[in-house]
Amino acid sequence: MIVFEAINTRYSHKEAFLPDPVPITDLEKIASAGLTAPSGNNRQTVQLIILPDRKFIDPLCEIVSHGGLATAPAAIALLTDTRINPPGHMVFDKENYSAAMQNILLAATALGYSSLWLDYPYFDEGRQHAAKKVLGIPEECRLWATIPIGKPDGPGSRRDKLPLESRLFYGNYGKH
Amino acid sequence: MIVFEAINTRYSHKEAFLPDPVPITDLEKIASAGLTAPSGNNRQTVQLIILPDRKFIDPLCEIVSHGGLATAPAAIALLTDTRINPPGHMVFDKENYSAAMQNILLAATALGYSSLWLDYPYFDEGRQHAAKKVLGIPEECRLWATIPIGKPDGPGSRRDKLPLESRLFYGNYGKH
Repeated sequence: MIVFEAINTRYSHKEAFLPDPVPITDLEKIASAGLTAPSGNNRQTVQLIILPDRKFIDPLCEIVSHGGLATAPAAIALLTDTRINPPGHMVFDKENYSAAMQNILLAATALGYSSLWLDYPYFDEGRQHAAKKVLGIPEECRLWATIPIGKPDGPGSRRDKLPLESRLFYGNYGKH
Repeated sequence: MIVFEAINTRYSHKEAFLPDPVPITDLEKIASAGLTAPSGNNRQTVQLIILPDRKFIDPLCEIVSHGGLATAPAAIALLTDTRINPPGHMVFDKENYSAAMQNILLAATALGYSSLWLDYPYFDEGRQHAAKKVLGIPEECRLWATIPIGKPDGPGSRRDKLPLESRLFYGNYGKH
């Protein structure tokens, strides 16, 4: 799939998935795309855990109640290893993770899957801690998101974008 | 260009650009790709200013000393309008901007251009203020980056990525 088609057809699939398994080779292509994203000072703090089937996802669902994660045949957990950042230097973990995430979403779209940037469960420190424990992630790392991946069970809802002219200017702010 | 090729060939071009102009239609395709990225709660706080030629970039170069910006035939300024975020709610401006940025970098790559995630000049509040003034950006908005775009004057340097196995795990953290 060409870049612009993937960018334009990617959407946040918040509904259920079909149970069809996702081949591990596809999950590896998607994860590898994520790890190819740029990172601040090339620190590459993003790390990924492929959750290839329900056996690995089910224990997370006891912590995270989301219909997409409850039905997805596969998922990827996205974390940053903050121990990589030298003390006293700027930290770009949020930028790094978001750029990696966007690559993951586009790669999944290109391979014909739906996916979701599922971050909000991990804002809660209790669930952050519990999910890290389930996935064996060291306490010093930050779990940012789990991305359910699979064939969608239905077309999924999509939200409108604002008109381009309200967000795109020429030469100077507000100019068209 | 297919998605995986763009993801794998994108790189941070920190060196000079050729003076060949970038057609406005290409800049619009690249900007539009950026504005198609997902955003937290669909708030779409990212806004872009296309700087289509040197006339618009030169005044910035008096504030930002970077070889790429000093030679690029075109650029895009990326900001978030923080006024869009309702008070008391979580703010996703950094995630929003980084996802939009990654779309911009991939779209530029797909159209045969080099580009750069040029953020560090704007961490300095003095330069942030001065650059916003030059671009007419309201003080409440945050200017995150300017992205020089053009044909590179030479192949550009690239930094190595860590081996995949140090960042990619299966089922549980650290497992292969």
